[in-house]
Amino acid sequence: MKLLIERNEILGSLTNVMRAISPRNIIPILNGVRFDLTKEGLYLTASDSDLTIKTIIPKEKIKNIEKTGSIIIQSKYLLEIIRKLPNTDINIEVVDGLKIIISTENTIFNLNCLNLEDYPHISLEEIKKPIIIESKDLKNIINQTIFAVSTQESRPLLTGINFKVNGNILECIATDSYRLAKKTFILSEEYESFDLVIPGKNINELDKLLSLEGNVEIHPFINKILFKYDNYSFQSNLLSGSYPNTSNLIPTDFEIILTTTLSEYYHAIDRAALLTQNKDKNIVKMETAEKTLMISSYASEIGKVEETVTINKNDSKDLSISFSSKYMLEALKTFEEEELLILLNTDTKPIILKSTKDESLIQLILPIKTY
Amino acid sequence: MKLLIERNEILGSLTNVMRAISPRNIIPILNGVRFDLTKEGLYLTASDSDLTIKTIIPKEKIKNIEKTGSIIIQSKYLLEIIRKLPNTDINIEVVDGLKIIISTENTIFNLNCLNLEDYPHISLEEIKKPIIIESKDLKNIINQTIFAVSTQESRPLLTGINFKVNGNILECIATDSYRLAKKTFILSEEYESFDLVIPGKNINELDKLLSLEGNVEIHPFINKILFKYDNYSFQSNLLSGSYPNTSNLIPTDFEIILTTTLSEYYHAIDRAALLTQNKDKNIVKMETAEKTLMISSYASEIGKVEETVTINKNDSKDLSISFSSKYMLEALKTFEEEELLILLNTDTKPIILKSTKDESLIQLILPIKTY
Repeated sequence: MKLLIERNEILGSLTNVMRAISPRNIIPILNGVRFDLTKEGLYLTASDSDLTIKTIIPKEKIKNIEKTGSIIIQSKYLLEIIRKLPNTDINIEVVDGLKIIISTENTIFNLNCLNLEDYPHISLEEIKKPIIIESKDLKNIINQTIFAVSTQESRPLLTGINFKVNGNILECIATDSYRLAKKTFILSEEYESFDLVIPGKNINELDKLLSLEGNVEIHPFINKILFKYDNYSFQSNLLSGSYPNTSNLIPTDFEIILTTTLSEYYHAIDRAALLTQNKDKNIVKMETAEKTLMISSYASEIGKVEETVTINKNDSKDLSISFSSKYMLEALKTFEEEELLILLNTDTKPIILKSTKDESLIQLILPIKTY
Repeated sequence: MKLLIERNEILGSLTNVMRAISPRNIIPILNGVRFDLTKEGLYLTASDSDLTIKTIIPKEKIKNIEKTGSIIIQSKYLLEIIRKLPNTDINIEVVDGLKIIISTENTIFNLNCLNLEDYPHISLEEIKKPIIIESKDLKNIINQTIFAVSTQESRPLLTGINFKVNGNILECIATDSYRLAKKTFILSEEYESFDLVIPGKNINELDKLLSLEGNVEIHPFINKILFKYDNYSFQSNLLSGSYPNTSNLIPTDFEIILTTTLSEYYHAIDRAALLTQNKDKNIVKMETAEKTLMISSYASEIGKVEETVTINKNDSKDLSISFSSKYMLEALKTFEEEELLILLNTDTKPIILKSTKDESLIQLILPIKTY
């Protein structure tokens, strides 16, 4: 393998494929990046066996393909080396089978490589009619739900996002059993139905890979899912098992309906959270009155805080309810419209947040009992 | 104590005085910020007993001084509270002697305070003729030397910067016994001589407080030093003992004199440092030749790197010398001129770095023996 390529042409691709390499990986060969130089261009592949990212730098972007071939390069040093080289032409050449020379005019790196035969075979299959979605829409869906996945391995399925397609409706749900985020998105055509769970950590990496331009192709399978974007193939394993049915968790009737200003409400909660007793849950209390919402918290020995937020309320009924300010703030960040609906029943029933104009996003937060 | 002040008028001052509060402080009262409201304005004081910062927000910047008085407020929450308030008028009022109310139109914080009588008396004395230096010059002196102070408590004096004034010459030296940074600065007038050692951590906080505008007054004493800048008084204790005499450590004659380009040399070292064996010392080797410098390093099992840098050399003599790339990179960052002098004798004698145009800064690095 021997090629000449401008440093900036390889840096971005390498940065992106390396998102698949896990720092906690214990299989030595998977710490390597696979280089396959063909007549079409340079393929780069990285995998942690759960997630695989592959890309091609097409031949038009390579100065010279002198000799095709393949090699596995230790990723630990490679990215830093390329990053610290000036933006000039870089020579990349395999010597003696298991060594690679990366050189510019004044620099020669000589790196030991990993054995090509040890690299696992990874097949990236496609379906005939993949789901097509704009990258910015997919990023939006991810960011409105991903924060609610569980970080606890005790219920592995909840560490993933539930992706469902039914006709032209894409539904994404994430929950850690204390709060739930649900986003519904109308696709431009009808597709074959599926219902699967993608690991949250992999979706996080997908989000970093996607920019706001262009379309993403989604190819679902029984045990894996492939996203194609730009020159990238991004394949994730799925979490096995049936995602819990969450549709009956979200109430549809509400006794108390409040309308408020998102930013005002957000900052009030943010300040009230400063003086909370329990640093894990950051509990604050919210009490409705005719035209105002009183948000309060206290920390013994420190002090207390009271915030007043203007609201509109549907009914003369009032309620006092406590919840985790951390969960509330994370949920509030997913809304863009300034007018926010807060839907309540009793102090033990879920709090539902919606935008007044856009029904596609629902955020649910369970209250916390305080005595 | 009762006053009305715009949030932005207090935020900056509070942020700056709080630099004196140490997170490792174990004396409860020193976790508080002292507020003294007088007819002249609001004085803020914070101290960790080793470092004290005091400032005044003059009365012209306060909307209303309703009642003068003093109080000690827990700093842990105070700064976050002020930061998260919108930029409107803030009411600050002491109630019941030991409670403070911080309120805006929609927000009421009620905080328990600390006992005023427990706060230590701190005197900020001044001398008649303080040293006057431009803030940007003092920042420059600090940044060219501070990185070389020792982080090891085994030789406490080396954790400080040696500040010396002799006539109109200010000399600052920092060393951790493996490298040394020395800066000489010509003051605009002659001052009374002094020779003292200021804790490096306090000098770091001073650097953050100083901006590029205006002058700093320096008031040295036997056991403390006061810096006055803008509305701030910054007083640090000194390290006691005699700073080692370093003047005989810096050679004045050199067998090999190299001239090179700073940025080229810096990047070559930076890349060579990627593949070093010992992650603490990051040893690289430098070998002179007629027109070039070869910089190399290797890490067994990983690979090796060779960098070539163009130089001018005074003599036909050549040398191979090894050193810590971390120390070299930190020293190189202090130079501004592109033309760099590297002064050498043998592979066991110090490496000296200077700028060709400006003799005021000397960086010394001891070589490392590698066999």
